[in-house]
Amino acid sequence: MITRKNTYWLATAMLAVCMAAAPVLGADGPPEPPADAWRVVDPDNLVLIDTKYGQVVVELAAEFAPGHADRLRALIRAHFYDGLSFYRVIDGFVVQGGIGEGTASTKDHPVEARDLEKRWPPLKAEFDRASAPSPVFTPLGNADLMAPEVGFEDGFPVARDPKDKREWLIHCPGTFAFARDNGPDTASTEFYIVIGQSPRRLDRDLTAFGRVLRGMEVLQKLQRGDPDVESGVIQDISKRDAIVKMALMSDLPVTERRAFQVLRTESKFFADSLEARRHPTSPFYFRQPSPNLDICGVPVKVRSIAVD
Amino acid sequence: MITRKNTYWLATAMLAVCMAAAPVLGADGPPEPPADAWRVVDPDNLVLIDTKYGQVVVELAAEFAPGHADRLRALIRAHFYDGLSFYRVIDGFVVQGGIGEGTASTKDHPVEARDLEKRWPPLKAEFDRASAPSPVFTPLGNADLMAPEVGFEDGFPVARDPKDKREWLIHCPGTFAFARDNGPDTASTEFYIVIGQSPRRLDRDLTAFGRVLRGMEVLQKLQRGDPDVESGVIQDISKRDAIVKMALMSDLPVTERRAFQVLRTESKFFADSLEARRHPTSPFYFRQPSPNLDICGVPVKVRSIAVD
Repeated sequence: MITRKNTYWLATAMLAVCMAAAPVLGADGPPEPPADAWRVVDPDNLVLIDTKYGQVVVELAAEFAPGHADRLRALIRAHFYDGLSFYRVIDGFVVQGGIGEGTASTKDHPVEARDLEKRWPPLKAEFDRASAPSPVFTPLGNADLMAPEVGFEDGFPVARDPKDKREWLIHCPGTFAFARDNGPDTASTEFYIVIGQSPRRLDRDLTAFGRVLRGMEVLQKLQRGDPDVESGVIQDISKRDAIVKMALMSDLPVTERRAFQVLRTESKFFADSLEARRHPTSPFYFRQPSPNLDICGVPVKVRSIAVD
Repeated sequence: MITRKNTYWLATAMLAVCMAAAPVLGADGPPEPPADAWRVVDPDNLVLIDTKYGQVVVELAAEFAPGHADRLRALIRAHFYDGLSFYRVIDGFVVQGGIGEGTASTKDHPVEARDLEKRWPPLKAEFDRASAPSPVFTPLGNADLMAPEVGFEDGFPVARDPKDKREWLIHCPGTFAFARDNGPDTASTEFYIVIGQSPRRLDRDLTAFGRVLRGMEVLQKLQRGDPDVESGVIQDISKRDAIVKMALMSDLPVTERRAFQVLRTESKFFADSLEARRHPTSPFYFRQPSPNLDICGVPVKVRSIAVD
């Protein structure tokens, strides 16, 4: 419970629905997950994106799209993104970063896209993969309007089709993916990150393979484009915010590394927190909300830990 | 269609899912709604919130909560909010503004909450109302996991229960509402605006009575609190962003007024655009997305017009 009396906020109800970094509050305050409910994130899967507003930390679900994950790591190591821009940003939808075939110039960093296809040839689509065996997949526990089955794997929101036994990452706020042209196998270097209401219609039609662990509030500060003009591409180059630098945590000097843990979504603690969300006991609720949960509204805790 | 070739963005699919201010794109570009598909917003229902990052424009659904709308207008006219702050801001969830019973001081504007209850006594809850007659209500056209029926009224996302014939505003990104304490009839002066994935569990348990027409990107820039510390209340007073000024459009001098139009959600144009969203024909989609739409993911166009 929130103990401060007579203040006009939304009490436990609000915290209970807030985003990834926030705790799931029970009636008696946030229970602490036991030590074994945490998974250490592989530093090879930790992507750091520096902007002038701060840093964004993305965890890659590399096993969902190994080709794209390898490409992204190669691009980062080639310093491909450093100095490029978030050149297409649509409020409530996505930020898109990269070279934009030479359209993504910033004031200080004019770019050309010559030989782009030769250097970074189009990738084969990885829209979905064979479903992972249980118990890695933890079902959300209720129906979903957009997919036959939804749940979590390693903290990532995942949808499945039991008929063809395929699964894919869901487009929630914070989902990291590669953009593409009209052909399926056309992704090459451009990435996007969802910053608004889950655009579920993109599920399984683009290669999504990561999620933001830290720094959504950084992405929310990026300069917007006008969605009615050139599909949201920011026309005034001087207004585009730069991708100052991208790096892999595993490439940093040991002394500069930071470690993160994500709550194990296959843990009993997480299952209990799902049920607590489903049937809130806080006196704040006069009317029990629907017991159905939104896969994109369930927070999965993240914390920093000391590096070994 | 987007005509620029060989660029790596998400083409029509992305625009089609973007937020309120964006057009619904068909396969041949954005069709223009006919003149009679627009409704002029009542300037008595237009709330202007000035921040250092820009202005937010909210339309009140006053008929859903006449008591709260009257209170809000009275507070604005008393300059109650001017100089107070967005003192509780949780990324991906809500911004909350007001006096916070004296906790919402800013560096330049220390506030006290003496006699607050006497001056602005708690309001009777207006969580829902008797359902409006058709055809004002335009059904979304598919099931919803959180309510028996959902659709639009005057551009606002609305849920209904056909059993008791009541209806209420849905918590989508941009929804404007009054916060309250644990009791139902405890809202007084504090407001909040949703800035993240739709927190549907708050539906019909708080008094929601407006939506942002312009300026979501402004709200997204506001200084965040730490959701793990005092429920997201920003502890460092100097970091809180001020509510510089709030005003009603109808109170501005005529020469300073601006007029807005919202697409009529009961129009044929809107019905057609819903169907186009449901069954996209763009070659961008290899796999038809689920025909189910998310009530909070459907844009309702807004435009500025010349003042008469």
